[in-house]
Amino acid sequence: MSEPRKIGLIAGAGPLPIEIARNCEASGIEIFMSRITNISDKETKQFVGDEHSLGHFGTRMASLKAANIKTIVFAGKIDRPDFEALEMDDVGEVMRPILANAAGDDAVMRIILAEFAAAGFEIIGPDTLLKSLLAPLGPLGKIAPNTAQLADIEIAAKVATEIGRHDIGQGCVVCNGIVLAVEAQEGTDEMLKRVAKLPVDIRGTLNNPMGVLCKRPKPIQEMRIDLPTIGVATLENAIAAGLAGIAVQAGGALIAQREKLIASADAANIFIFGFDAELGSPN
Amino acid sequence: MSEPRKIGLIAGAGPLPIEIARNCEASGIEIFMSRITNISDKETKQFVGDEHSLGHFGTRMASLKAANIKTIVFAGKIDRPDFEALEMDDVGEVMRPILANAAGDDAVMRIILAEFAAAGFEIIGPDTLLKSLLAPLGPLGKIAPNTAQLADIEIAAKVATEIGRHDIGQGCVVCNGIVLAVEAQEGTDEMLKRVAKLPVDIRGTLNNPMGVLCKRPKPIQEMRIDLPTIGVATLENAIAAGLAGIAVQAGGALIAQREKLIASADAANIFIFGFDAELGSPN
Repeated sequence: MSEPRKIGLIAGAGPLPIEIARNCEASGIEIFMSRITNISDKETKQFVGDEHSLGHFGTRMASLKAANIKTIVFAGKIDRPDFEALEMDDVGEVMRPILANAAGDDAVMRIILAEFAAAGFEIIGPDTLLKSLLAPLGPLGKIAPNTAQLADIEIAAKVATEIGRHDIGQGCVVCNGIVLAVEAQEGTDEMLKRVAKLPVDIRGTLNNPMGVLCKRPKPIQEMRIDLPTIGVATLENAIAAGLAGIAVQAGGALIAQREKLIASADAANIFIFGFDAELGSPN
Repeated sequence: MSEPRKIGLIAGAGPLPIEIARNCEASGIEIFMSRITNISDKETKQFVGDEHSLGHFGTRMASLKAANIKTIVFAGKIDRPDFEALEMDDVGEVMRPILANAAGDDAVMRIILAEFAAAGFEIIGPDTLLKSLLAPLGPLGKIAPNTAQLADIEIAAKVATEIGRHDIGQGCVVCNGIVLAVEAQEGTDEMLKRVAKLPVDIRGTLNNPMGVLCKRPKPIQEMRIDLPTIGVATLENAIAAGLAGIAVQAGGALIAQREKLIASADAANIFIFGFDAELGSPN
């Protein structure tokens, strides 16, 4: 693929779309910000683009084509809507029954990708535009996991694989070999908040942090979209949950707000660790 | 096994130990209530017995033997403590490193059972004392799941099997084919409370209930202890979470407060359904 000079960015929630757009501007790549009503961050409005409801697939495609966009990228979180009730345009109406019957989030994303591909768009991953987004192998900051923490990471990596294999979620929390929490539709932040409420007997604390948040792609993951993402908010919730660190699959997770994240993790003595994709993967 | 006439009941939290004790009294079986400090319900004090800290395994065994108890039953919930920090007696100290290294709850319970068995006790399941405790096959009250709900039950049964296979937990919530929540250390009630906070787009509501709570034994489950249990509190949380019903494995789950539970479920138009053990089980 030759480097595209103009990209349509379909902006889910959170700071990631803005981070990617700024980086593209800095490298001379033109961004057309394709915002989603009530989902994209307000700050996305500072970029050239337009806005459509989530279910207006056809209008969005037409608008991207009118802006001469051939390549698109999806970035940011989009909570799964009720596809049976979602307001749709004509293209959306055709997609509705297929989307409504998709059992997991990955299944939904594959259907949407296929629809954009069928309309002639090339879809690239956010990491194509911002190489430093992908988690590297090993510790990201100054802190590295110790032997006990590495053991928790290995268990967590296995559990996350199983959860992902069934398209349930991308993450879990393990502390001293015990699975404290498994992520489904509530998302990582809610999972971490619940760990913070578990009895201190089985988890770490601010003064004595223990255990790890692990996020990794599903074994069935479409790698161009919806990769596990961690950022400053993830770190803050992990600290509040008494965790010793965060582990993500190297090359299989996005790091948002990288510099701030590393500085905050170092300051809090929390590790952020990229583990090898082989760890705890399906045989 | 000939019917024992005197039983030691090691009482975890909740109403189940009291329900079993009352039933035993009514059938002429003598109960010695072996209470656990800060865990057993206050009402357990009305029964003959005594009380020990959770980690005082040796003292508890000696006391049961002094009361001429040969058969014991474990009933009620015991949250996993931090075995490294738990105050232990001499027998407990021997068990401590093994317990501390046990990765899952089932592993912990097997170690404790083995210790009581080695001390000469016969351990029976609560359902041996109260036959009506075990969930029957089919609907428990007047309401039966419809076709869409049966489809959710099948998915939930499969997911619960996978969760259990890894000794993570016994339950999950599925709505329209989507796994809304998976249970780990937080327990069923907390899981249901979190489903109630998910966007209404992907779950049911009081007026339009959808989805199912599923609980089943782990494939590795020791069937004499820690069987999944549902009661009136479970039902109330399931209703608040907008669920259409509760499904448990027939013969593999305990029904506490049975009459009140059925009456409340019928009044709320919620199904309680016992599914066949084959459904979603490992091949």
